[in-house]
Amino acid sequence: MTKKKVVLAYSGGLDTSVIIPWLEENHGLEVHAFAGDVGQGASELEGLEDKAAATGAASCKVADLREEFLTDCVWPCLRALAVYEGRYLLGTSMARPVLAKGQVDYAKQIGAHYLAHGCTGKGNDQVRFELAYQALAPEMGIIAPWRDWHIKSREDAIDYAAEKGIPITASKEKIWSRDRNLWHISHEGGALEDPGAAPPEEVFMLTTSPKLAPQESVICELGFEGGVPTSLNGEALSPVELVEKLNALGGTHGVGRVDITENRLVGMKSRGVYETPGGTIVYEALRSLRSITLERDTMRQAEKLSIDYADLVYTGRWFHPLRRALDAFFTESAKPVTGIARVELYKGTATTIGVESENSLYSEELATFGAGGSYAQKDSEGFVKLYGLPGKVAAMVGARSRS
Amino acid sequence: MTKKKVVLAYSGGLDTSVIIPWLEENHGLEVHAFAGDVGQGASELEGLEDKAAATGAASCKVADLREEFLTDCVWPCLRALAVYEGRYLLGTSMARPVLAKGQVDYAKQIGAHYLAHGCTGKGNDQVRFELAYQALAPEMGIIAPWRDWHIKSREDAIDYAAEKGIPITASKEKIWSRDRNLWHISHEGGALEDPGAAPPEEVFMLTTSPKLAPQESVICELGFEGGVPTSLNGEALSPVELVEKLNALGGTHGVGRVDITENRLVGMKSRGVYETPGGTIVYEALRSLRSITLERDTMRQAEKLSIDYADLVYTGRWFHPLRRALDAFFTESAKPVTGIARVELYKGTATTIGVESENSLYSEELATFGAGGSYAQKDSEGFVKLYGLPGKVAAMVGARSRS
Amino acid sequence: MTKKKVVLAYSGGLDTSVIIPWLEENHGLEVHAFAGDVGQGASELEGLEDKAAATGAASCKVADLREEFLTDCVWPCLRALAVYEGRYLLGTSMARPVLAKGQVDYAKQIGAHYLAHGCTGKGNDQVRFELAYQALAPEMGIIAPWRDWHIKSREDAIDYAAEKGIPITASKEKIWSRDRNLWHISHEGGALEDPGAAPPEEVFMLTTSPKLAPQESVICELGFEGGVPTSLNGEALSPVELVEKLNALGGTHGVGRVDITENRLVGMKSRGVYETPGGTIVYEALRSLRSITLERDTMRQAEKLSIDYADLVYTGRWFHPLRRALDAFFTESAKPVTGIARVELYKGTATTIGVESENSLYSEELATFGAGGSYAQKDSEGFVKLYGLPGKVAAMVGARSRS
Amino acid sequence: MTKKKVVLAYSGGLDTSVIIPWLEENHGLEVHAFAGDVGQGASELEGLEDKAAATGAASCKVADLREEFLTDCVWPCLRALAVYEGRYLLGTSMARPVLAKGQVDYAKQIGAHYLAHGCTGKGNDQVRFELAYQALAPEMGIIAPWRDWHIKSREDAIDYAAEKGIPITASKEKIWSRDRNLWHISHEGGALEDPGAAPPEEVFMLTTSPKLAPQESVICELGFEGGVPTSLNGEALSPVELVEKLNALGGTHGVGRVDITENRLVGMKSRGVYETPGGTIVYEALRSLRSITLERDTMRQAEKLSIDYADLVYTGRWFHPLRRALDAFFTESAKPVTGIARVELYKGTATTIGVESENSLYSEELATFGAGGSYAQKDSEGFVKLYGLPGKVAAMVGARSRS
Repeated sequence: MTKKKVVLAYSGGLDTSVIIPWLEENHGLEVHAFAGDVGQGASELEGLEDKAAATGAASCKVADLREEFLTDCVWPCLRALAVYEGRYLLGTSMARPVLAKGQVDYAKQIGAHYLAHGCTGKGNDQVRFELAYQALAPEMGIIAPWRDWHIKSREDAIDYAAEKGIPITASKEKIWSRDRNLWHISHEGGALEDPGAAPPEEVFMLTTSPKLAPQESVICELGFEGGVPTSLNGEALSPVELVEKLNALGGTHGVGRVDITENRLVGMKSRGVYETPGGTIVYEALRSLRSITLERDTMRQAEKLSIDYADLVYTGRWFHPLRRALDAFFTESAKPVTGIARVELYKGTATTIGVESENSLYSEELATFGAGGSYAQKDSEGFVKLYGLPGKVAAMVGARSRS
Repeated sequence: MTKKKVVLAYSGGLDTSVIIPWLEENHGLEVHAFAGDVGQGASELEGLEDKAAATGAASCKVADLREEFLTDCVWPCLRALAVYEGRYLLGTSMARPVLAKGQVDYAKQIGAHYLAHGCTGKGNDQVRFELAYQALAPEMGIIAPWRDWHIKSREDAIDYAAEKGIPITASKEKIWSRDRNLWHISHEGGALEDPGAAPPEEVFMLTTSPKLAPQESVICELGFEGGVPTSLNGEALSPVELVEKLNALGGTHGVGRVDITENRLVGMKSRGVYETPGGTIVYEALRSLRSITLERDTMRQAEKLSIDYADLVYTGRWFHPLRRALDAFFTESAKPVTGIARVELYKGTATTIGVESENSLYSEELATFGAGGSYAQKDSEGFVKLYGLPGKVAAMVGARSRS
Repeated sequence: MTKKKVVLAYSGGLDTSVIIPWLEENHGLEVHAFAGDVGQGASELEGLEDKAAATGAASCKVADLREEFLTDCVWPCLRALAVYEGRYLLGTSMARPVLAKGQVDYAKQIGAHYLAHGCTGKGNDQVRFELAYQALAPEMGIIAPWRDWHIKSREDAIDYAAEKGIPITASKEKIWSRDRNLWHISHEGGALEDPGAAPPEEVFMLTTSPKLAPQESVICELGFEGGVPTSLNGEALSPVELVEKLNALGGTHGVGRVDITENRLVGMKSRGVYETPGGTIVYEALRSLRSITLERDTMRQAEKLSIDYADLVYTGRWFHPLRRALDAFFTESAKPVTGIARVELYKGTATTIGVESENSLYSEELATFGAGGSYAQKDSEGFVKLYGLPGKVAAMVGARSRS
Repeated sequence: MTKKKVVLAYSGGLDTSVIIPWLEENHGLEVHAFAGDVGQGASELEGLEDKAAATGAASCKVADLREEFLTDCVWPCLRALAVYEGRYLLGTSMARPVLAKGQVDYAKQIGAHYLAHGCTGKGNDQVRFELAYQALAPEMGIIAPWRDWHIKSREDAIDYAAEKGIPITASKEKIWSRDRNLWHISHEGGALEDPGAAPPEEVFMLTTSPKLAPQESVICELGFEGGVPTSLNGEALSPVELVEKLNALGGTHGVGRVDITENRLVGMKSRGVYETPGGTIVYEALRSLRSITLERDTMRQAEKLSIDYADLVYTGRWFHPLRRALDAFFTESAKPVTGIARVELYKGTATTIGVESENSLYSEELATFGAGGSYAQKDSEGFVKLYGLPGKVAAMVGARSRS
């Protein structure tokens, strides 16, 4: 009888390497590895096929998902100006759907019956992967070894790898866990486990310390169409090029560090440190451009739905009817958000210093305090009277009933 | 027949000075001036009584409203973490209610029939004053000369002042309009009327340019009780002292500059530049302290209602039943937000580097990725399954109906 | 010199008839009448061209807007299940945009410079017409005689009509004001001005009193596609036919009466009595069909946005970017709302007695309390633990800090 | 060694009776029964102590929680006008917290270490009980036999009862499951499992079929203070008396039947049929009274938060910081909701026919269409202009950028 197949979301690291022999041994499956390139860096991807083969995988597919990651996942979140709990730009959350989709595509291609991942039972990523699996391939089974097996620690895993002859380079003292892609890098665990203490400087990988950043600021001009970035300093760029260049610029100037104690979906708070140099610049630019191109009511509604959108993405509901419906809202509402924003980078800050749009709703003639023009100040009298009328009646009635 | 009385919200500047003779001449009223000290600075208040008398006022009352301003208006907004359109800390919006209340109190004390202010017909302040008047004294008439009279410009006002013998120091070339109090200073108009250009450095009054700020950072530790600040660096301080000290610290380090194109209530966008050095530090500290003391659901609801609260305050609905009801929400929800936050100030940034609370909901034991403890990873399996069930069923049905 | 042209939203009644000579006399304009047929009834439209000519209009265009009214305005509101303040199905609010659009189209066709309407300064309709004008023809001037002129009452208007030789049939004692279209009829004013008293039976025009309705109920089966009704009792019908048939059925059975004290946009409360027989049936049916075809998160968000959508429509912001963006949300989210609902009509009630959909998310196998099947009850344990974890931690910390 | 104690939420029915011996046998615990009287009816409570003793319970406490149920749980939900998914008045959801609290109180009194309930792993009630336990006694263990044991069906339970000598009256063919209290009765399962079919008439226990209800309507007048009912037909009544009388009235007239396919928390849809005769009358009355006593902004916010409040209650988060914070909002906002509403009951309908309040914000003088009075129609012109300005500017810019 031929073995059934499982496709594993594979990184080449210790956590997923030990799963390969384990799945075969304990579930009797033929294990296929899938790795998506979302910009985690060449060193992470190099030799992955060989490594997987050496570990016992029947195949290993590495797919370049970088542009898909940006256009299908990052741009929609950006267009919604989605930020989780006021600070986190969702770098890891947004990458899971595109990775899961690549993995499911590969599983369908090779006729697999199962999907597996290497996430623990305490984090958000298990939810993000599994909800994506359920939405894209509800017929496939899901295996999450880290919730199930006897391996309870890094040390256990290293021992198991040694036993199975898996070549690993990990030391037993890895201090914190990281997740990197084109948009960001996250750091969790280890010395970061105390929200009372600042993150040690050696945690950071993409950004210079603001204190060591150049004394000279730099200005970059971002162009947007419909809420999506399309150019840098006047030059049209592909999404990948644009983010890479902004990451370099932002990193140099110490832009995009975030330190947050956030609410995980699975019930506990956790402390995360993130570096999103390019993303921070784009958010700042877009927020400023939006302020001159969206009128008040749409902006207010967008501000509120943005919180819901971030929540959906963070909690793994990417392939969910509600995310699609909110995306329709943001796509429609962002249509006029076209133009440019100039952002100055200086010692950890990214500050808009100018916005321009052919759709600008700002009118100096209307806003200026001088008289004349198309705005009759006298109109305000009627406006204020009627605007205040409900409150006035309530006050009159309230005064009467209290007296 | 004795003249009826009007109480004017008086600043001593050109805009309100010319109103005094005008009200007498055109409305036949006895004009009384009222000025509230909300921290606009000693020079603004000095000799105000004499100035008012020289301009023809029957009386002039100057009331110290600084502590009331902070405890009754600023603290509730802060507790709600209210920010208007993502950037504006509401410094002017929050001061209007306390000023209007002081003015109404004086009007009731002297038996006045009218209330007057010197706001133009294009701004938000007319609404804020008049809605407060309507709520607190719906029986009194309201006069807003700048919407009505022949005076259409600064030049007209200066000419009228000269004609009436009012001593003024204003030049015809005042470049931008300012509003200052303990919490902030705002700048509008003049050279700021182009959102495409950065504000010129000479605009700023409270904050050093980040580029000229010290190379050495400073750390301050803020203590909170129930979402309200009570101490600085371990020392219990009165609200006024606390804000003054934080303003000095923040100003030195270039903290709290905001540049925004905002939606005014009266229908147009306007560009405002704000300096809120101390306030920016307190918001950063409180946001971080909140992240460890509020659980997820309450935080999410607070994030959304915060947008509504800011909107109510910005649009002048302070003495409105809805603001009171939202305040009840925030007072209740902020009860556990007690503890300390350490904030580092450096070249325009204010960054939390540590938070501690006896009510902290963060638990290293729960959060850490190691196994064991009171959290059974196996529980996640059931959680993820049921959490994802609605999406899975929708995906299955969707797939079936599309096929 | 040729006169400039104005197009008047014309009904043929007293209120708009007197405007024709007045506009000519007081503004020196050539007056063109426009009437849109939105189902107000043949008697209202009959002879309108002659009447307008006799009153001095240079032209009168009557346009059949019935289907456009339903498909462009009513269906989007229905798809959003928009209800104002819990009761009002927006019959008048939805008709204003399509009427204003027809009027503007005619104005552009004949090269008019002005738009006029016959709404008073106390109601919502002035806002609905004028916001539509501003959005569709911001370059045209707006004239609203009832806010401006010397005519202050029905009696004044009748006198003015007599003076100008306008043939009218109105008596001076009209008791309440009505607005009728395919979707509903509204009643306001007169004997309805006291919310303490029930509306007299003679107010009602479309619906039998529930007490006089048949003792036998009737069942109708409505078919929907994507949240829009398409068939009745198995027969595909045009929108106009469908609503007309449902109105007849609902009216016979006393369905669709609403009595509400609502908040007008212009600051006061008003009492309205509405009859929406067919609409009430469709809402009931769609709400039930939605309950089996939308999963929880989308439904919850839709419930909230529905309130905002109703508010936008009620307050005249139909041609507003936010309405379009919310419409994108509802169009996307309603995609699976396809199927049928059976509704029983009986003495004023419309009650769903069955729903079916190929997209139904209801699964007896999942829901039933028996064991087995694809749902493992054991999974609930993990779910409940993690779902309750934030509250549990908060309770533990709260207990500790209180002790 | 003495056995540890467990307190079981006990009903005397089959589902909880079998738990008593099972807990002793399988967990080695001393089992104490707790039953709260929330109005489930005398027959349900009669002889409960004897029954528990006969089944092996070490003690059985029956506590009268009827008034507490109404004042602590029902009134807050009512004041918030909380309705789940547009239809369900939360009768079961609201009873769980007061029952759990009574059970925990008893457990603390007797020094128990565990809490147990008889809910299945598929329903909402397990969550409601356990979240309450976690909040009120996070230190106690929780046992939920129906998720764990070998008993998988009603038949299994009957067999187990027979084996243990437990006297039961249940037949193996119980058709649907019921939950009754003062506020409502719910029906689920059995013949109700098909949303395509109407509930059979024999399901209903509290309400006459509308078709068999009297031809004569009856009118009842409800008095409220601060959003809470206090009198019926002019007579001050205790909460229990008031609800009992309204139930009788509503039941006679067929009022309060609800048929809904709702989203359970644990991921699936389920079909519920509810009878809430008195509650339906009170909601109708309060909604009408609110419409004349709350101004627009507060009402709009209350409408939205009401959805969130219902969600919290339905999902078991009663003793949760967010519910308390929302309750603070509703308590404050409902302060003026004092007055009376007259409701007519007729063949399944409850319709307000008059509301009166000393806090009424309705003003005939403001609302009436005649001229004069304190409302100057001319003010509307300014209001409409400024209100529409953002949309107008957006339209102008949009037109320009499209051309």
